[in-house]
Amino acid sequence: MESRRPYDIDSLTDIAFRLFAQRGFDATSMDEIAKAAAITKASIYHHVPGKEALLARGLDRALAALFAILDEREAKEGTPRARLETIVARVAEVTMRMFPEVSVLFRVRGNSKTEREAMERRRAFDAIVTDLVHAAQREGAIRADVDPALVTRLVFGMSNSVVEWYRPSGRIAATEIATAISRLVFEGAAGTPD
Amino acid sequence: MESRRPYDIDSLTDIAFRLFAQRGFDATSMDEIAKAAAITKASIYHHVPGKEALLARGLDRALAALFAILDEREAKEGTPRARLETIVARVAEVTMRMFPEVSVLFRVRGNSKTEREAMERRRAFDAIVTDLVHAAQREGAIRADVDPALVTRLVFGMSNSVVEWYRPSGRIAATEIATAISRLVFEGAAGTPD
Repeated sequence: MESRRPYDIDSLTDIAFRLFAQRGFDATSMDEIAKAAAITKASIYHHVPGKEALLARGLDRALAALFAILDEREAKEGTPRARLETIVARVAEVTMRMFPEVSVLFRVRGNSKTEREAMERRRAFDAIVTDLVHAAQREGAIRADVDPALVTRLVFGMSNSVVEWYRPSGRIAATEIATAISRLVFEGAAGTPD
Repeated sequence: MESRRPYDIDSLTDIAFRLFAQRGFDATSMDEIAKAAAITKASIYHHVPGKEALLARGLDRALAALFAILDEREAKEGTPRARLETIVARVAEVTMRMFPEVSVLFRVRGNSKTEREAMERRRAFDAIVTDLVHAAQREGAIRADVDPALVTRLVFGMSNSVVEWYRPSGRIAATEIATAISRLVFEGAAGTPD
């Protein structure tokens, strides 16, 4: 079968991650990726050495997008609390915008070197946010009766969980979801709107 | 190799779910389950028809434990808000107590009939909780500016996320985690202790 359009590692990563996000990395074969791309398995190996290389490429995209948030002006300037609010809202947005890559990132558990390296970088990201939670606690803007690392984990736990059910074409818009996360995280379910 | 102790489907489910929780259902083979149980692959098929049957057994345990929460007295009596607080705290506790089963339940995505049935039962559970969130919103005890189904998803998203990192032998005790979830969910990160 002839390829319908020219492929490169990036377009094949797009196709592979739609399948990985839907069925899981382990449950997806190179055969299925080739079929979804409408090319032969032989020609897919012309572009990429294997499934692991596609995984590494997509995980790298997700991690680069997350770390880029920390370099945004609003994430670097202002009070720890304000910086934290920016980061939480932006992480939720990136999660939904880069849904396939981020959802696969949140599911890796160290089955390979690629997965272990991605987990290591996620932990480094969380450590930076935990320092900010701690700073916000010291200024009295975040409750101090919960361990800062636990706050980080639970907050991102809520935010990351959208990958379980979010669909770009779904009933609830991404901005509404990001706003809901921000409200619940900072004000709580029993809180009243500002 | 002789079995060290008598096996039945329940003890094999225990062993299988430790592996499923660690590596994922798809990444775990019957060979590996037999090896972890220290019995031959032939003798494991004496007890269970296959990996899918072990999956069904463990998912059923997790779902039965979650639905049992709804039958507890504090989840049935009192205000919607009080019932909701009980359910959120108890779901977090069950998640940690039945860590392997619940973590696998939270990761299934419909790759088989067993997985689709489990997802259906989870959705039924969430629908019951969503009705309760809606009732709590009507009595003014839960903020009404977030869709009730979205509140349910995000709250359980936070609670369920503990399966990503919780270890029974870890630094933070299960009760401390359940308390933190309850505080963040109802009062928010910026809230002050009662």
